[in-house]
Amino acid sequence: MKSFRKELWFNTSKRREFINITDEIEKCLKESGINEGILLCNAMHITASVFINDDESGLHKDFERFLEKLAPEKPYDQYQHNGFEDNADAHLKRQIMGREVLIAITDGKLDFGPWEQIFYGEFDGMRKKRVLVKIIGE
Amino acid sequence: MKSFRKELWFNTSKRREFINITDEIEKCLKESGINEGILLCNAMHITASVFINDDESGLHKDFERFLEKLAPEKPYDQYQHNGFEDNADAHLKRQIMGREVLIAITDGKLDFGPWEQIFYGEFDGMRKKRVLVKIIGE
Amino acid sequence: MKSFRKELWFNTSKRREFINITDEIEKCLKESGINEGILLCNAMHITASVFINDDESGLHKDFERFLEKLAPEKPYDQYQHNGFEDNADAHLKRQIMGREVLIAITDGKLDFGPWEQIFYGEFDGMRKKRVLVKIIGE
Repeated sequence: MKSFRKELWFNTSKRREFINITDEIEKCLKESGINEGILLCNAMHITASVFINDDESGLHKDFERFLEKLAPEKPYDQYQHNGFEDNADAHLKRQIMGREVLIAITDGKLDFGPWEQIFYGEFDGMRKKRVLVKIIGE
Repeated sequence: MKSFRKELWFNTSKRREFINITDEIEKCLKESGINEGILLCNAMHITASVFINDDESGLHKDFERFLEKLAPEKPYDQYQHNGFEDNADAHLKRQIMGREVLIAITDGKLDFGPWEQIFYGEFDGMRKKRVLVKIIGE
Repeated sequence: MKSFRKELWFNTSKRREFINITDEIEKCLKESGINEGILLCNAMHITASVFINDDESGLHKDFERFLEKLAPEKPYDQYQHNGFEDNADAHLKRQIMGREVLIAITDGKLDFGPWEQIFYGEFDGMRKKRVLVKIIGE
């Protein structure tokens, strides 16, 4: 069994942002030399997500509105977590969007359907945060 | 390490539908000959889900009502994604229900609790769509 | 390839509870002797979750309020599932919080960011229920 590990770093300019990381994940896969197996990609922080959906800017605005409806950022004092922090909404948003994705690796490629793209979802940004890529296989 | 890959195809008669695919996944596992490892099952389309829950028709109606409350299909123009499409709600519903499940394989069986059943969740159906089954182990 | 399997049992005193199981998962990993690979941890019941987030009691109260807003327990008769049961809300809450987590294993350790902690999320407790830990690697 071969295994590969890499961290990707992000520092968004806004509190919330969606970043397409598919190309970076493909580079990791190439670097790993693994042809058959699985690839785990997860946020290493608990106010961020990794998820798979469509790379369409209108949809990303819909995600923002949807998440703000379910777990609004403000007023900050609606959340008990927000004593010394202001990011309770980010912890909730991350639960809806998910922490991680697991992707099949077949013939050295991400085994994807036609529109699958991988995103880093930042819900409490403007500071350095990490995503972990772990690949196992042969 | 052994690996196995198969696609399952669906074409639902309604826009939204839940289909129990546990038997089909068990057939894949048998066909793979893998006894110890893990099985990934994921929607290959971004308006569908694979998830594990109860095979109870009342609950499936509750899921439908729950998802329509959080991300209603109509009016279509409430979503910025719906310029040329009408399926923004399906992209959102899929985030709540999830893209994939990962199942432990032990002694050649899906290592399940008493009521776990695997479902394909279609949120934008009436066309051919796929689910990927990938098994690794030995 | 090595593989390891263990069940963890829970019996909460309340209907809904969040239990930090990180230490127990670390013990499983140590017991497995696996240094490189992946660890799957999933609820074996369909009214419970395993998820990764912050060990902060205020946030856990926010989770409770958030989940009760999206899928309220009462009135029971708002759900079609609740003919002979009263736990439809628990099936819905588990979809939001997720069934499972997958964790990279590197150098014999859970490959975690600074604040990642693993929780058992019980939504229909006061009876014995199980979590599965499966590790594969070498």
